[in-house]
This record gives sequence, structure tokens and C-alpha cells, in this order.
Amino acid sequence: MKFYEMAAAPNPRRVRMFLAEKGLLGHLKRIEIDLKKGEHLTPDFAALNPMKRVPVLELQDGSTIAETMAICRYFEEQFPKTPKLLGETSFEVAHIEQWLRWLEFNFFLPVGMAFQHLTDYFAETKVQHTEWGEECKQNAEGFMGFLDKHLKDNTWICYDRFTAADITAFCTLEFARVVDIRIQPEHKHLQAWYDRMLKRDSANV
Amino acid sequence: MKFYEMAAAPNPRRVRMFLAEKGLLGHLKRIEIDLKKGEHLTPDFAALNPMKRVPVLELQDGSTIAETMAICRYFEEQFPKTPKLLGETSFEVAHIEQWLRWLEFNFFLPVGMAFQHLTDYFAETKVQHTEWGEECKQNAEGFMGFLDKHLKDNTWICYDRFTAADITAFCTLEFARVVDIRIQPEHKHLQAWYDRMLKRDSANV
Ligand SMILES: N[C@@H](CCC(=O)N[C@@H](CS)C(=O)NCC(=O)O)C(=O)O
Ligand SMILES: N[C@@H](CCC(=O)N[C@@H](CS)C(=O)NCC(=O)O)C(=O)O
Repeated sequence: MKFYEMAAAPNPRRVRMFLAEKGLLGHLKRIEIDLKKGEHLTPDFAALNPMKRVPVLELQDGSTIAETMAICRYFEEQFPKTPKLLGETSFEVAHIEQWLRWLEFNFFLPVGMAFQHLTDYFAETKVQHTEWGEECKQNAEGFMGFLDKHLKDNTWICYDRFTAADITAFCTLEFARVVDIRIQPEHKHLQAWYDRMLKRDSANV
Repeated sequence: MKFYEMAAAPNPRRVRMFLAEKGLLGHLKRIEIDLKKGEHLTPDFAALNPMKRVPVLELQDGSTIAETMAICRYFEEQFPKTPKLLGETSFEVAHIEQWLRWLEFNFFLPVGMAFQHLTDYFAETKVQHTEWGEECKQNAEGFMGFLDKHLKDNTWICYDRFTAADITAFCTLEFARVVDIRIQPEHKHLQAWYDRMLKRDSANV
């Protein structure tokens, strides 16, 4: 299967980590798209994903799936014997999706907004609103305090076992450095969780 | 099960439509939270959902699920004999999730941003950045053109059958009126789809 991505970008990384944890990374033929050069803005790429973003998965028959979590769920469903990272029971599936959405809406997206509005990476193609970027940055920092408290009594984010929620939190945290958001000295539980994450093989794919 | 919502708000409405289509709406004991009065900002409500948003589902045993699509997926998994609105096969599940995310990130969220930054509804509790709100409004309008083209050859958004993607598109479209975003005369296919949606009983719950 072809996987259109940019190795350094956080969303494709979430998919790679997800597949590495399931032992499925070998299924991907990785194709690098340079976002800085605007290679995702061509008509060819828009035919793969009209939203002009990576990652995109292309199956053998040419059909495509865009959107990070849609691609992850495809593999979760298609390879049911691999470790479940999106939950087993109805409640687990819902609980993990709740956390994934909390992380995306209150952490990943604000960090992404801060990146877009405060750095010059996309300055040539996107309008920048600095004050909005600053507010998003503050909100993302606030969410890290919430996460730190949650991890006081939890080894992993959901159910004391590793799930896709940990992957999203980890990739967001590493991405957040580009806007100078870092774990603070008082975030002891978040730091301990982050240290556990770094020990996983999937942290390096 | 207790369902904390605000009847007029678009996210709780997505859940109600989803359950109405499955014949499960009777499972909910609806509890109204007045967002305008800030009833979601109390410590009691934050104990149900630390993100301080509706909807929230509370199960018999007191456990909670926040986040619209997490609640929908809970019912999809828990009541497997009801009509499937999130897909059957791995590919369908992924394809519908792709569309749900396209709709949320490129239509629902920009409309929500426009609402927050251009109207006075949340003006007492949230900072407003007018120019950013205007840009979001334009992006949401742009997405409607994309949706119109897609619906030229499709009765429903995915697979020519009704799915959760139609619910999200419909609730966003009706919500968008608050920031004066409306179907344009040239959006003939979107209009025809909208007329089909209005005929469903679930459009009125
Ligand atoms: N909602 C999408 C977001 C994908 C996304 O924003 N990808 C970034 C790279 S991490 C991108 O392609 N950015 C290009 C741009 O914003 O123009 C997903 O979850 O996959
Ligand atoms: N990501 C959440 C968003 C929920 C949400 O934003 N709900 C709105 C009502 S439709 C709300 O509670 N707003 C209160 C606020 O923004 O303070 C979901 O999908 O359920």
C-alpha cells in the first residue's frame, strides 16, 4: 500500500507509530511529499486528497483513505489479530475515541494553529493571525497541565495500557517544540509518562 | 442513560439524529444545560466533562462518555442490530470516518469558530479575533462548493446510502445560518440533498 506522508510531520508519524505497535509498518510503501515546497498543493495530489494534506493511504486497487485516524481505524479493523489500540468493548472504543478527540481538539489543533500563525513555515500560503496563534499556544499549554494531573494516577492515558491516545499525545508533544511548548519542571507525571513513551521502539519510526 | 445537552446546539443534535435513525432515542433521559447562562462552566459539570462542553452521556453505572462521535460510536457498537451508520467493512468504516473528519475539520469547526469570533454569544467568556472569524467563515463557504460538486453524482455523502456523514453535514449546515452562511443558488446538488434530508423524521428530533 502506498503511504503519502512527510516523515517529519506529526500526523503521518501518528500512523507510523500505530502500525509499528501492531507490527504492520512493513505494509507501507512510503512516499515523501515536501510540504514546505508545496508538493501537496498540486492537482495530482489533490486527486488523492482534495483537502491537500498528508497522510493519505492508497490501497492496491487505487482507492484512497485520507485522515490520520481513519487510516488507523482501517488497519485496526482489517487486521483484527494485531494488538487493539482503539479498544475492545463498546465502552472502551468510545472512551478511547473521547480521549483521542480531547487530544486532537484541545492539544493537537491548538499546537497546529500556533505553528501556522506564529512560525513562517506556511507563511507564503496561509494568512497569519498572531494574537489567535498566541491564544492557541496558551490553550495547548493549559491542556498539558490537565494531562499531567490525569497521569498522576495512570501509567498510560486510557486503561493503564498503551492505546492510540498515547500515540496522539506523544506526537503532539514532540511537535509542540516547534512553537517552544515544552514539558514544565512541575509536570512530573507527564514527564514520567513521556520517559516511558521514549522507551518504546515505535517512538523512533 | 442521562444525556447532558442543549437542545438548540449542533453537537448534541448530531447524537439525537444518530439515535433517531437507529430507533434508540428512547434510551436517553435528556438534561438541558444552558450554555448561554454558563451552566457548563460549573465544577459539577466539569466533573462530567473536564472539557466543559456538551454533549455528555452518563451510563447507568455513572461512567461518562463525552464527545459527539465517541457517543455515537458507543451506540453503533453496543447495538449491532440497528442500522449501521458508521460502515460495515473495514474500508467503509475508514471511508466514513474520513468524511466525518473532513466535515468536522473543514466545515463544522470553521463554522464554530465564526460563531465564536463573529457573534456575541460567547463574548463574555471567550476572546474574539474578528479577522480570524472572517477567514473561517470564508473557508466554510468554500467547503460548501466542494460538497455541492461531490453531491452532483451522489444521493448521499458516502456509498449512496444514509450515514453519519450526512448527519454531520446537515447539522453543520443548519448551524451555519447563525453566521449567515447559506446554500447559494448555484449549489443545486447541495440543495437537492438538503431537501432529501429535510424529509427524514430524524431531521426534527
Ligand atoms: N485532519 C488531518 C490533518 C492532516 C494535516 O493537517 N497534515 C499536515 C501535516 S501533519 C499537512 O498536510 N499540512 C499541510 C497544510 O496545512 O497545508 C488528519 O488528521 O490527517
Ligand atoms: N468536540 C466536541 C465539541 C463539543 C462542543 O463544542 N459543544 C458545544 C455545543 S454544540 C459547547 O458545549 N460549547 C460550549 C463552549 O464552547 O463553551 C464534540 O464533538 O462533542
